Amino acid sequence: MAEKQLQNSDKMQRIIQLLSTQKAKLFRREYLDLHVHEQAQIFAELDQTLRSRLYRYLTAVEVGDMFDAIEEEPEEVVKYFQEMPISYAAKVIDEMYTDNAVDILAYAQNKDLTHYLLALPEERSAEIRSLLHYEDKTAGALMTTEYVDIFASQDISSAIKDIREEAADAELIYYAYVVTDDNELIGVVTLRDLLTNPEETLISEIMTDPVISVPVDEDQAEVARKVRDYNFVALPVIDYANKLVGIINVDDVIDVIDEENAGEYSGLAGVDTEETPEDPFRASLKRLPWLVILLFLGMSTTTLIDHYEGLISQASILAVFVSLITGTAGNAGTQSLAVAIRGLSDSEEERRSGWKTIISELSTGLLTGIVTGLTICVLVGLWKNNWILGSVIGVSLATAIIVATVAGSIIPLVMDKIGVDPAVASGPFISTLSDLTSVLIYFNIAHQFLNFFINA
Amino acid sequence: MAEKQLQNSDKMQRIIQLLSTQKAKLFRREYLDLHVHEQAQIFAELDQTLRSRLYRYLTAVEVGDMFDAIEEEPEEVVKYFQEMPISYAAKVIDEMYTDNAVDILAYAQNKDLTHYLLALPEERSAEIRSLLHYEDKTAGALMTTEYVDIFASQDISSAIKDIREEAADAELIYYAYVVTDDNELIGVVTLRDLLTNPEETLISEIMTDPVISVPVDEDQAEVARKVRDYNFVALPVIDYANKLVGIINVDDVIDVIDEENAGEYSGLAGVDTEETPEDPFRASLKRLPWLVILLFLGMSTTTLIDHYEGLISQASILAVFVSLITGTAGNAGTQSLAVAIRGLSDSEEERRSGWKTIISELSTGLLTGIVTGLTICVLVGLWKNNWILGSVIGVSLATAIIVATVAGSIIPLVMDKIGVDPAVASGPFISTLSDLTSVLIYFNIAHQFLNFFINA
Repeated sequence: MAEKQLQNSDKMQRIIQLLSTQKAKLFRREYLDLHVHEQAQIFAELDQTLRSRLYRYLTAVEVGDMFDAIEEEPEEVVKYFQEMPISYAAKVIDEMYTDNAVDILAYAQNKDLTHYLLALPEERSAEIRSLLHYEDKTAGALMTTEYVDIFASQDISSAIKDIREEAADAELIYYAYVVTDDNELIGVVTLRDLLTNPEETLISEIMTDPVISVPVDEDQAEVARKVRDYNFVALPVIDYANKLVGIINVDDVIDVIDEENAGEYSGLAGVDTEETPEDPFRASLKRLPWLVILLFLGMSTTTLIDHYEGLISQASILAVFVSLITGTAGNAGTQSLAVAIRGLSDSEEERRSGWKTIISELSTGLLTGIVTGLTICVLVGLWKNNWILGSVIGVSLATAIIVATVAGSIIPLVMDKIGVDPAVASGPFISTLSDLTSVLIYFNIAHQFLNFFINA
Repeated sequence: MAEKQLQNSDKMQRIIQLLSTQKAKLFRREYLDLHVHEQAQIFAELDQTLRSRLYRYLTAVEVGDMFDAIEEEPEEVVKYFQEMPISYAAKVIDEMYTDNAVDILAYAQNKDLTHYLLALPEERSAEIRSLLHYEDKTAGALMTTEYVDIFASQDISSAIKDIREEAADAELIYYAYVVTDDNELIGVVTLRDLLTNPEETLISEIMTDPVISVPVDEDQAEVARKVRDYNFVALPVIDYANKLVGIINVDDVIDVIDEENAGEYSGLAGVDTEETPEDPFRASLKRLPWLVILLFLGMSTTTLIDHYEGLISQASILAVFVSLITGTAGNAGTQSLAVAIRGLSDSEEERRSGWKTIISELSTGLLTGIVTGLTICVLVGLWKNNWILGSVIGVSLATAIIVATVAGSIIPLVMDKIGVDPAVASGPFISTLSDLTSVLIYFNIAHQFLNFFINA
């Protein structure tokens, strides 16, 4: 991705040139002048030789700041640590925000991880070790431990003094969380509150309580919803005893929202659009598994049609409408599926119950099925001047749409219940399943009226 | 949506009860104690009688704060203003953040709008009038004019004094934008910078420049990308002469990201999942247009198959494989389409050129087509013990996949070029188009080998 931006940016090309020609001082000046996001883009373009040189030209603190902005996958970034001397790597890790460092260290080999943790200051090492335990995609895995905490008994001027001191290390200083001696979360004040009230005001007088927070094992999708609904810049994370254990920042939440949306989207298409590489060979490897699996599933429909070959050979007109019926029912199923998957991304409280969804989709299926069925009945009746054929196609299509619509709403509910992510290739699955049921419905209905079609 | 949360919350039920029984004082105390997001959820549950009562119990300032958190569609919210006396409505609008007020007023009737603007303080009225001119889905339409600006020649203590004064009105005080006398944007400082440097430091010494900003006519998707890439809490908006005209906050950007993602997603399924109501009758009305349009498009495939009915009546085995070929090619086309649409959401610089995309998709289509074609050739060859039939199906499928894959990448590019949103029902379109080409390819190839299939 970064590749394209660099091609458009002479400045970035020149900086790489400075590194290549070993102009250490000039390189430092121009590189460090950039936003860390741009520094990280340049870094992604370097080969191993240039990266090693960069580690020599920059301090571990400077590299650590830049690593906070790296967008490559953590399993890639962890390899960079292996290129550095261990003490340098430890300093880079030390400088990074804890949540980012932990994301990457989760992919380190055990041996390396031990080395880094030993080289880190004891407190940092313990912090990282504790965060490494949290399950992926929970609040605990998203949170950082660099926040500002104050006491309710402080006054504003003393709180501001505390914030000033913690400002260099804290990832976010715009909210200060109010805790008891036991670290129980009891309130929150914003920097705005602190700046707009008299200096001698007590925190207890101005703090907001109760605080909106999330438990440490909360699902990341729920975290994203809370931040979005309440328009927070950060959200505190508490443990089972209401103790403050970390905060989650809005920028990490944006990544979660993107990730969750991409998952749904990829599932509808049967391809992981986020990870699809540009190289055609590797892109094919990503797409082929689903294509081939769906091909095998599609064979079940083929076998079923094969079963009715005798019927077709007697009335070949029947073959003409198979695609129309399977295609239209598939479209109806996909619509229903998309609505159901989106519904699953609503918060627990906002969701409709499963039964309510199914009954509502059944009614929707009935209505859309009848309208669409009547339409095709008229079309075919007029086209072939055969109203019995039209009626058979119409009734088959209506029934197939009703079944596909209900299936489209049930399948993600069931997958969600048994713990499978409904976003995995569910779009092509529903089409394939709906093909099967549509063919079954169609040929069974058609069979009853066979005499009317022979040589229709 | 709020309905379900309220059922789970006795507290919220009690507050509505207090309003119903005209307990003004108790109602005020408990209602105002809630977060505005929760206040807005309760408000959404009230009927017109209770809403009128609420306007009497609360000041316009309190209602204005709550209106900033309302999540209903602006065309709905604007109706609430009509329920209030004009001077009260104007005060509510005055209290709201300008960007939110403008979003809603964009749906007001001209007569009402004139009344509100006349009742507002002159400065506010001018601000709102100017923002109403910006095109929907641009930076101008997203931005707010309540920001903090300072001069480079100020020192930190004077800047903090300015921020304190503006804090009550500004939507975001964590960044202060540095401007010239002409309001040209030349730098930015964060509150963190101000708190961690000595009070006598000049702003010019610590400000970050140049500032990352967006032009006022920038597309909202590009704005969202910048905020996400740079992890900003807000992004300044400038006009053609580099003058600061507003800022965009991260919470508004989150809504944009959701909106853009939902658009892509809805397009893949041919249904607007965001606006699909729960009522089956209205849901059907939303889904039917695409179903029926696609049904008519599907009729073209049907007519084409009808054209080959003679072929089918001679070799009914051919009908057995139509669904498999159209279905699999459709899956391949949808994969390619999803990747292409996601690619369009990358920023201008990150995008691959159109030709590069097409050549890359052609290669991917070739590879996936050949592998899938070989697979089905073997399957059918073994199943029917007819390797010529297997080869015809294999070659047809491979060709159909190649065509569908390339079409899937070209169609969104073309739609984007001619200014049509590729997210509109593009998923079902590609399936339908690919059905047509697949059938054409299949029957033409099959026709050449007809003698081998008769009574196969």
